[in-house]
Amino acid sequence: MEYRQLVDVLMSDQHFADIVLTGGHVINVLTREIYSADIAIKGKYILLVGDSNSLIGSKTIVVDVADRFLAPGFIDSHMHFESSMLTITEFSRLSIPSGTTTLVADPHEIGNALGPIGMKAMAIEASTVPNHVHLVVPALTPDCPGLETAGYDVNSKDMEEILNYPNVIGIGELQGFSNAKHVYNHTPEIITDLIASTIYAKSMGKVIDGNAPELFGSELAAHIIATGGKCSCHETTTKEECVEKLRQGVYVFMREGSTQRNMAECIRAVTEEGFDSRRCILATDDMVAEDLEKLGHMNEIVKRTIAEGVDPVEAIQMVTINPATYFGLEDVGVLSPGKLADIAIISDLREMKVEAVFLEGKLVASKGKLLIDMPKYTYPEEVKCSVKRLPIDEEDLKIYADGREVEVRCIELIPDQNLSGSLEAKVRVQSGMALPDIDNDVLQIVCVERYGRNENIGKAFVKGFGLKHGAFAESVAHDTHNIIAVGTNLKDMTEAINHVIKMNGGIAVSKGGKIIEELRLPVGGLITDELTGPEVSRRISNLEMVVKEQLGCKVHAPFMHLSFLALSTSPKWKITDMGLIDVNNFKVLPPLIK
Amino acid sequence: MEYRQLVDVLMSDQHFADIVLTGGHVINVLTREIYSADIAIKGKYILLVGDSNSLIGSKTIVVDVADRFLAPGFIDSHMHFESSMLTITEFSRLSIPSGTTTLVADPHEIGNALGPIGMKAMAIEASTVPNHVHLVVPALTPDCPGLETAGYDVNSKDMEEILNYPNVIGIGELQGFSNAKHVYNHTPEIITDLIASTIYAKSMGKVIDGNAPELFGSELAAHIIATGGKCSCHETTTKEECVEKLRQGVYVFMREGSTQRNMAECIRAVTEEGFDSRRCILATDDMVAEDLEKLGHMNEIVKRTIAEGVDPVEAIQMVTINPATYFGLEDVGVLSPGKLADIAIISDLREMKVEAVFLEGKLVASKGKLLIDMPKYTYPEEVKCSVKRLPIDEEDLKIYADGREVEVRCIELIPDQNLSGSLEAKVRVQSGMALPDIDNDVLQIVCVERYGRNENIGKAFVKGFGLKHGAFAESVAHDTHNIIAVGTNLKDMTEAINHVIKMNGGIAVSKGGKIIEELRLPVGGLITDELTGPEVSRRISNLEMVVKEQLGCKVHAPFMHLSFLALSTSPKWKITDMGLIDVNNFKVLPPLIK
Repeated sequence: MEYRQLVDVLMSDQHFADIVLTGGHVINVLTREIYSADIAIKGKYILLVGDSNSLIGSKTIVVDVADRFLAPGFIDSHMHFESSMLTITEFSRLSIPSGTTTLVADPHEIGNALGPIGMKAMAIEASTVPNHVHLVVPALTPDCPGLETAGYDVNSKDMEEILNYPNVIGIGELQGFSNAKHVYNHTPEIITDLIASTIYAKSMGKVIDGNAPELFGSELAAHIIATGGKCSCHETTTKEECVEKLRQGVYVFMREGSTQRNMAECIRAVTEEGFDSRRCILATDDMVAEDLEKLGHMNEIVKRTIAEGVDPVEAIQMVTINPATYFGLEDVGVLSPGKLADIAIISDLREMKVEAVFLEGKLVASKGKLLIDMPKYTYPEEVKCSVKRLPIDEEDLKIYADGREVEVRCIELIPDQNLSGSLEAKVRVQSGMALPDIDNDVLQIVCVERYGRNENIGKAFVKGFGLKHGAFAESVAHDTHNIIAVGTNLKDMTEAINHVIKMNGGIAVSKGGKIIEELRLPVGGLITDELTGPEVSRRISNLEMVVKEQLGCKVHAPFMHLSFLALSTSPKWKITDMGLIDVNNFKVLPPLIK
Repeated sequence: MEYRQLVDVLMSDQHFADIVLTGGHVINVLTREIYSADIAIKGKYILLVGDSNSLIGSKTIVVDVADRFLAPGFIDSHMHFESSMLTITEFSRLSIPSGTTTLVADPHEIGNALGPIGMKAMAIEASTVPNHVHLVVPALTPDCPGLETAGYDVNSKDMEEILNYPNVIGIGELQGFSNAKHVYNHTPEIITDLIASTIYAKSMGKVIDGNAPELFGSELAAHIIATGGKCSCHETTTKEECVEKLRQGVYVFMREGSTQRNMAECIRAVTEEGFDSRRCILATDDMVAEDLEKLGHMNEIVKRTIAEGVDPVEAIQMVTINPATYFGLEDVGVLSPGKLADIAIISDLREMKVEAVFLEGKLVASKGKLLIDMPKYTYPEEVKCSVKRLPIDEEDLKIYADGREVEVRCIELIPDQNLSGSLEAKVRVQSGMALPDIDNDVLQIVCVERYGRNENIGKAFVKGFGLKHGAFAESVAHDTHNIIAVGTNLKDMTEAINHVIKMNGGIAVSKGGKIIEELRLPVGGLITDELTGPEVSRRISNLEMVVKEQLGCKVHAPFMHLSFLALSTSPKWKITDMGLIDVNNFKVLPPLIK
């Protein structure tokens, strides 16, 4: 459909609209109004928002949308498909019916695991789905060089290649400054390299997403400048931080996903301070299949934002025109002539109940059901062999110690947070080895390099899971996605880890020396292309039940929590393949306190 | 200055800011706030907005700006240098001290007169000045093919060349739809050609300015689509029109220049309807040297906008962040880290009194005086020979008629408007020629093709100038800039026209068969590169005084008014080299009513 043909429909008496939606209330995110108007559609495009009587011909389909609200299709501005363990296709099958028509995904996890080959595979899938999936690619893997091992080291040398993959619109979460003083003082070459990448991306007209948790003043300014002067942040957690970032020109992606929920705090910059909200954007970052299925997607986030006291149209701006403007996505985000006819039809504005969805002028979902075929997508074999190390022995996991008792460093799991705490504990020593203390919930935690680059194994203790038996392991361990495992004994830990190695990625639960439950995640050790969203959701539920009922685990979402204990960009103590990481001081600590 | 060096200043203890402005009130156009904060500058860039104590070293210049307001340098989003008759250099000398640091100019007039060669010459000058001058180039000259003759016919064939000239950021005012039904019905190939140009420009990431006076509904939608779905309009004159355009996604450039003043009407969409103003932008379109010198530039327009009831920060957004976002000018329009340090220092916010101006980190103006050298710019000879026709004879101007009296068509000059009216009048016939009726202010008006392409002369009558003696002629005649002349008798008209031809462009006033005043405009017949702004201003004043006192003219700004009587895109009757134009019906009318 060419623009010239659209002009013909509008200007001549011989051509007509394909579809006219009549009687609805248009949510105009341009003017921040709601009023009654038709929407006329031709091919993929919106022809007109307004009286469309003259555009109705004998073949025009007139759809009565009386009492419904018509909004532009929603945009999730920062998300990782890997967090859902789903292919783009399966994620989209769940998210389209809730009104999300555009996704900006950061293939950061598969990038850490597989490098360019993994990101390219995802970019190719992105180009096959009917919704709009754009990618922003990492400029640096691993995020903390020297503290962790990724499957591939991405840096500025890769930009020319990966920025040119299909659907790539920019650089993703630039994290070099998440520990700004340390990076600047100890590895300033990282900053030089990041700036080389951002200048190159900027010269191509690409966006650069930042990520500046807890940065203020000069450090925040340095981060903004390193991103080329225009950046976003999706890890803003307090009102004060949000105020600072909006004032300095950062586009604040208020995060509200399955794990981190920061919107209610951030939105206070708007509801309490009355800030211009044009740079406020809503994003999920991480969504699990179960939430997508049961709660919805961006419609749910908008609903929560409205509940915080934001005008509904202003909240909808945060998932439409605001991100479209930031990313330069000129064809979406508003309902006006010449834009793609991506329309969410909403029956209840405060509840954000999405009744039907148009995508590029086609009715693709109704009452929560997808109406189009989206065939299962299978990834190529080359991205299904990400676990390249040999099996381990129990011996490899031992923490050697002298005497009968020893003081150890223990990561403290904090429920529902990326952050962790730091504790000290005393444990028994037997046969020269420091033992977990199950009664006091001091368990062993290890991180096993899985890419065959160095065969590192990091070891420490952890408190908070409450396991009484067995162990579990997974190849999802942010951000480098080595194999992380927690357990009550080394035999079960070894069993679980070796099963993950054998599956070429996934989750394994062991008890009494046997595997009692598993989930295969063959794509980069992160994603399954074998299961649908509801199937993954059921399988995760079952895994969680097994861990709870048979192992005695007391935290909900134990796999998610375990996976974030490797995230060495977020304080305080974490574990990587290189050992126990003191995030704030940017160094490796021994597990034993001498 | 590289970003890396800016990071060094922010992160290390060894490097410092060049300049810190302390004690001022920052106008934050990002959040729509005013608060106290320092601004630290290094090289051309802003380092930090906020406490900058740690960035002050022994060589840092600390400037006390207590009680002053610090705003981003202003942007004029749509203007024609030609309207000022000044070079870019001389215009900038006047506009910089008033706080304007960025200009988006449409070289539409020189494009009509000289085509690519003229636009290239202007683009080259744009690249020499210290302020930021961007160009948006016409995709079509003349605007009304078939109704007027330009010096060069620009169309899609020229886009590859002219869009690549220095400083060109897009296509300028796309006017093909200003008479939409007629263009569509009679010359649809124009629309096809315009769409070819806009698709090409869009593919290069360039902007496309629209221009949609009096369009609503389907016609407006067709225009928006022809511009690629994102456009501006700077000829919106009523609140109703402004409401419609903002709703349909048009960026409304509320015009407030020397001739047309539409802001007070347009701004009602904001003050009365409470519209989100992010797509509201202020622009001048046409400014004369005298106004620039005496009133100011964008500061004056902002002042008037505040006087209409708009919050001062919101009004300043309309000349800073709003246009920067529209044009994708990522380095200007906001005060935040990494942006160019273009800063207007304002001593009185409601009066918008600009006390000093920083441009790229350098103090360039103080108390209305320019502090930097801007040498006079001389255009190459190749753009100074735009008048290519032979002199005319009196005979050429005669309107032949029979009988003793005849009914004639008479253009009605409407003071302070581009628009004109239509009248009928009876005039005497002598020696087979219809005569002007001086007593009733029915004068002759002619338009003489000056490019040597066809030697056309259009003839008609006009009411409204009130001349009692003599004639005046000029090579400024929108938009094709043939030579337009009005007069009480053919001898003086011939004299004035031939003097303009002899000067290779300019303005000439004649009386009693002699030239009594002149202004040379050698560059394309539109601009002088011989005079400064104040000199042009004095010369125009003198010309106006002569026309008023010696010829009896009763309208102010007679040269401006005359020049717009050739503008065949704005209703109702106009004159071009092809004759009297019935703009609404897109046709040429004979001067006599048979």
